[in-house]
Parts: sequence; structure tokens; C-alpha cells
Amino acid sequence: MPNISIKGKSMPESPIRKLVPYAEDAKKRGIKVFKLNIGQPDIETPTQAIDAVKNSDIKILAYSRSEGSDNYRSKLAQYYSKKNISVKQNDIIVTSGASEALFFTLGSIMDPGDEIIIPEPFYANYNGFSVANGIKILPITSSIEDNFSLPKISEFKKLITPKTKAILICNPNNPTGYLYSKEEIKKLVEIVREYDLFLIADEVYREFTYDGYKHYSIMEEESIDQNAIMIDSVSKRYSMCGARIGCVVSKNKELIKTVLKFAQARLSPPTFAQIASLAALETPEKYFDDVIKEYKKRRDVLIKKLREIPGIKVSVPKGAFYCIVELPVDDANNFASWLLKNFSLNNETVMVAPAEGFYSSIDTGKNQIRIAYVLNEKDLISATNIIKEALIQYRN
Amino acid sequence: MPNISIKGKSMPESPIRKLVPYAEDAKKRGIKVFKLNIGQPDIETPTQAIDAVKNSDIKILAYSRSEGSDNYRSKLAQYYSKKNISVKQNDIIVTSGASEALFFTLGSIMDPGDEIIIPEPFYANYNGFSVANGIKILPITSSIEDNFSLPKISEFKKLITPKTKAILICNPNNPTGYLYSKEEIKKLVEIVREYDLFLIADEVYREFTYDGYKHYSIMEEESIDQNAIMIDSVSKRYSMCGARIGCVVSKNKELIKTVLKFAQARLSPPTFAQIASLAALETPEKYFDDVIKEYKKRRDVLIKKLREIPGIKVSVPKGAFYCIVELPVDDANNFASWLLKNFSLNNETVMVAPAEGFYSSIDTGKNQIRIAYVLNEKDLISATNIIKEALIQYRN
Repeated sequence: MPNISIKGKSMPESPIRKLVPYAEDAKKRGIKVFKLNIGQPDIETPTQAIDAVKNSDIKILAYSRSEGSDNYRSKLAQYYSKKNISVKQNDIIVTSGASEALFFTLGSIMDPGDEIIIPEPFYANYNGFSVANGIKILPITSSIEDNFSLPKISEFKKLITPKTKAILICNPNNPTGYLYSKEEIKKLVEIVREYDLFLIADEVYREFTYDGYKHYSIMEEESIDQNAIMIDSVSKRYSMCGARIGCVVSKNKELIKTVLKFAQARLSPPTFAQIASLAALETPEKYFDDVIKEYKKRRDVLIKKLREIPGIKVSVPKGAFYCIVELPVDDANNFASWLLKNFSLNNETVMVAPAEGFYSSIDTGKNQIRIAYVLNEKDLISATNIIKEALIQYRN
Repeated sequence: MPNISIKGKSMPESPIRKLVPYAEDAKKRGIKVFKLNIGQPDIETPTQAIDAVKNSDIKILAYSRSEGSDNYRSKLAQYYSKKNISVKQNDIIVTSGASEALFFTLGSIMDPGDEIIIPEPFYANYNGFSVANGIKILPITSSIEDNFSLPKISEFKKLITPKTKAILICNPNNPTGYLYSKEEIKKLVEIVREYDLFLIADEVYREFTYDGYKHYSIMEEESIDQNAIMIDSVSKRYSMCGARIGCVVSKNKELIKTVLKFAQARLSPPTFAQIASLAALETPEKYFDDVIKEYKKRRDVLIKKLREIPGIKVSVPKGAFYCIVELPVDDANNFASWLLKNFSLNNETVMVAPAEGFYSSIDTGKNQIRIAYVLNEKDLISATNIIKEALIQYRN
């Protein structure tokens, strides 16, 4: 039998999906499962995005340009300019989701063995993209006590070696919901200038900020326009995760040229989804006002209900739609599995994502979970009640 | 300025796209360009595929399963069984095109530095996927004199080292149009059994065979069911290149499990395109009868017209819709650029793909081009006339 290589074997399992088989079993036993494990919003996609596809007059579903259609990229540049991000069509390569955008970026700027610094907890799939590219993540642990704000710059400096090529942040952050302030971004700007590193920012949750806070993009920092690489996606912005349209944005022309080679090797991003994404750019502001109001309401009720549970610690998210919750258990992974395998309250239970998979440091975050507040208020209340009751039973 | 790494820089440029800027310039000068460089058919997509998307009732364009929707995979397995390929839903992982399928496969079975044997000329993007995975292609040159049939097995044996993990074929072949016979497949089966290698077959052109020849899949060989990996795609079969739906198919469960980890890291294949692909499986046989008749007609006129050009050598394709043409010039790359930059006949010219990029051996195939016969008969006649006249002028 042929030898499946170690490389393939070392690809990590996705922490947001590893419990799915238990959830399917629970469902078979007639138990309703509230899914707080994955960032799949229940918000409707803007109708104009769906309608554009339905009304399209395609006879031949052809390849688009490898870099994405001119039409889409030029309108996307206009959208960014409204967000105070001044870029041109040619600074953008359209990809199959932010996943591919990050994958191409890492492949373009790093050789196997190179290192990237990422504050942890971080979006778990950064692990997968790094393993697939043979590169090494150097994590810096941020703390629930500080609401997961930016770790001290001195901590970054300690890790930098000649192999360090980039710092990667997600802002607003998945899984913590933290929104980096302008001051924090400026601190990162200073260090990438000093050490001549790339600064990669995954800004797919840009629109989702609460309490009057506003997102500040790394692309607003002109002094690092050769270092700054923005990763973006329509998935969360327009609740169209299934489109698979993202992009790499940078003013570094050599980077864009190299990313384009990766893009050409896979031919093109999906055509239907580009049509939907183009139309989605016309989404009226009211859609976002409503969506953000809804998420804020959910966040507020979730945090309030979680805080009523004895022994729980929770950070208040300023953005995105996730939060990290510290539980009064030793192993949140066990607890999360137990919720699906052994527990139900009135025939209902909850699926959450154990947070351990969002940390790269060993034995860190073991008592934490990530909750995605992608369900409505009523379901969130039911879900938190289940967690409360489950903790009581589990700890006995 | 940050250091863009060598890895990114060593990604090859796509040979089918490198002349595109010249073609765009020619167009600006008012010259019509016949595009024979890329396998984008002018054949209409089956209407039921497009209609399924138009009639879909999507409110939230959500992620699908990472491995592809159950519905699509189970119907796809039924399609394969009609092709004498007996596989189950769980032997299939749906991907964003054959590109991603091959990328995940190489990542799953090989470590950086490992080697894969591929008969050349081969589909140029295999280079890109290999560079991105840090693996080495060992080419075996097939010859236009033999119509690009399978090189001698002794040539394969010479190249096998402990680092050799797989043999990759494309059948029917892009760029040669060659269709491997059952006997040739059996020879490959023997060698992969003897040396315990993976046998990967890119079979995306399965339907396109001419002159009564029939495609024989590696999946029909039960004795290598743990070694065989089939790469597939809807792009050519249903003329829906822009869908970006492909798949990895194998009975090797460890492989499928590993490919799934790669698939989970990028979340899911595109949702609209899966809807179209599911409906496309209902395409009546008549669609293929008509399409194959059309391609055969094009092939026949193309070969006939090319053979009328003095000094040209051409292999007769038995499948797919490409052929390799040897020109009476030293450097087909120069000639192809010159066609776009300096030549026109009645304000028309032709874009072809220089074949050098389909070879991995240095200085091989320099006097060859690949022609994709994806245009109608009339345009093919015009295009061959242009090539004929151009060669006369170019050689003077």
C-alpha cells in the first residue's frame, strides 16, 4: 500500500467541524442541536445578489479572468474607497474565498520553514494554510483578562528572527470579537517598518462593529503600502459564505504579480458567485444597519445570559460575531463532546467550538470555547440555558 | 521593502495566458484575434444546469459541506457507475475545479522534495501545483512521431527513486489529444503495483473521444484501488468552466480522510456551482452526441487544413480538444508573440499557446504550439489560413 505522506497527515482537523459527527448522531436520536460552532449566519443574503444570478443571461458558463472580472474589481475598489481604503482595480486579485486569498499570500511571500507571527487565539484554519505551505506559526498569546487586546510589542520583538516574514492579524477578530484600535494598528505599523515585515490583515468582519467603535484598516497607513496586505471576503459581509469570493488587496505590485501566478494556475474564481458579489456591492446601508442592530442585540443577550452562569468568564466582543468563553471545566473539548453525546435539556442541546484549536501554543485555551452568535435571540437564550444546566450536571 | 520570497517568484507563468496582453493590444488596434490558446469551449452549457441555478430558492447563500453536498456526491457516484467506474458517495470529495482537486491530492500524498513522474508535454498548470507544493516533476518525453503515446515503461523505471510517490497522467490528454489505450493503462497498473506508487489520472475529458475509441479509466482496475486517484471536473464535460467544480475520487480511505482536512481548511466548494453541477448530471446523451460530433468535425477540418501547410507536423488527437503542432520555426514562442504583435491578415490574427510551457525538460518542444479547437469550423479555417500566411512571412 502506498505511503500517504506525513505532510498530509499533519494537516490539523478543523476545530469547528470536529464535533459535527456527534451532532449528527444527536439529531438521529431526535435531539435539536443549536449550532454555535460555525460562523454561518442565519441572516438573509441581500436579495439583489441572489437576483443578479437569477436574472443573468448566461449561455456559456465560462472562465472569468484569473484575477477576477474587471467589472467586479473596479466596483470593489469603489466600495473600498468609501471605507477610506484607497486602492485601484489592479491592486486586487479575486479569490475563492478569503481562504484562497490567504493561501496565495502565504505562498507568495514565504518559503517553507519561514515564520509568521500571529496573536492567538486565531482563526483555526490559519493552521491549515500554514501546514500546507510548510511554514511555521509563532503565536503570541492574548488574554481574556485584557479582552484579547494586542499583546505588548516587546513580545513580538522577542520572536522575530531572519526567518520571520510577516505578522498576521484578524480585525475584527475571529474568534475573540476584539477590534484593534487605531493606536494598536499604529504600533504594528511601527514594528513592521522597523523589521521590514509584511503586515497581513484579515478584515472580513470590517462592517461588524458595535458600541460606536469603527474599524481602522491597515490599508489606511500609507507609510506601509509596500508591506500591507489585506485579506477580504464577501462571505460574512453579505451573508453569502457559499459564494466563495474573497480577495487579496495590496499596493505592492510585485506581490500582486506573484499572487496572480497562483491565481492563473487555478484558472479562475467562480463565475456565478462573482455576479452575485458584484450586485451585492449595491446593498443599501439599511441592510447593514439592520444586521448590525440584530447582532448587537444578540451579543448583548448572549453576554448577559453567559454572565449569569457561575464560574464563567467572557470577553465582550466589539466586533465580528464571536466570543471566547472560559468555562469552569478542565477540558472544554470533553465538555463540548459530552454536550452532544450525553446531554440534552427538553430534547435540545448545543454545539460549540472548543477553543483549544484556535491556539497554537500547547495546552492553552483548554478551558475555553468559541461561541458564534449566529442564531436569533430566542435560540441564544435557549442555548445559554442549556450550557448553564449542562455545566451543573457535568461538574457533578 | 520586504523580501518577496523565492518560492513565490518561482511560480511559473501560465503559458496559455502569457500572450494575453499582446492579444489585448492587438484588439485595441482593431484586429480580431482567434483564441486557440485556451480550452474555453464555445459550446453552450446544458440549459438545465443554468436553469437549476435560476430556479433555486436560496435565501441564505450558505456554506455547503466541505466534502461537497450529499445530494451532489451521491448522484455523481451514479454517473460514474454508468461509466463503469464503481465508486460510492464517500469516495468523492468535491473541490473548486480539478485544479484544487490535484492540489489537495499532491498535498496529501507528498512531502516537499518528493517526486512525481509525468509524461510530457503535460497540462502546464501541473507545474504550478508542484511548485506550490514544493515537489519535483520528473518528466518523460513522449514524441509527436508516436502521436504522443505512452513512453516505454523502462523509461519510467529509470526515474523511480525512494522519493517517487506517484505517476500522473491526463487521459484523454491535454495538450496532445492522445487517448491512452486499455493496454497502456494496464502497463501503468503493473508498474505502480511493482513499486507501490500512486497512479493519478486527470480524466476531465472522458466524454471527448473520437473515431470509435472509448475512454478506459484507471478506476476500472480493481487491483490498484488503494493506489488509484481520479481527478475530475464539470468544466469541459458540460462546458461550464466558470462553475469551478471538480473532485478527487479514490477508494483509499486514508487519502480521502486527508484530502478532507485540506477541504475543511478552505471551508466549502461554491454553492451555486454545485446546484448547477447537480442538474448537469441530468444532461441527456444527445447533448454529448451533438457536442462530440461538432468537435470531431472541427478536429477533422483543423488537421486537414494544418496538413496543407508546408513544413508542419501534427499529431491526430483521439480525444479532448487539443493538438500539438510542430512548426517550421526555431522558436514557436517568438512566432506566437509575433502573430499578435506584428501580423494580421485582413485585420485578423491568431493566439496560440507556445508548447514549451507544457514541457518540463529544458529546450524541449520549442518549435511546437498547442491549438485548442474550441472555435467553430469557419473560424478554424480562417485561423489556419492566417497561420499559413504568417509562416510564409515570418520565415522570410
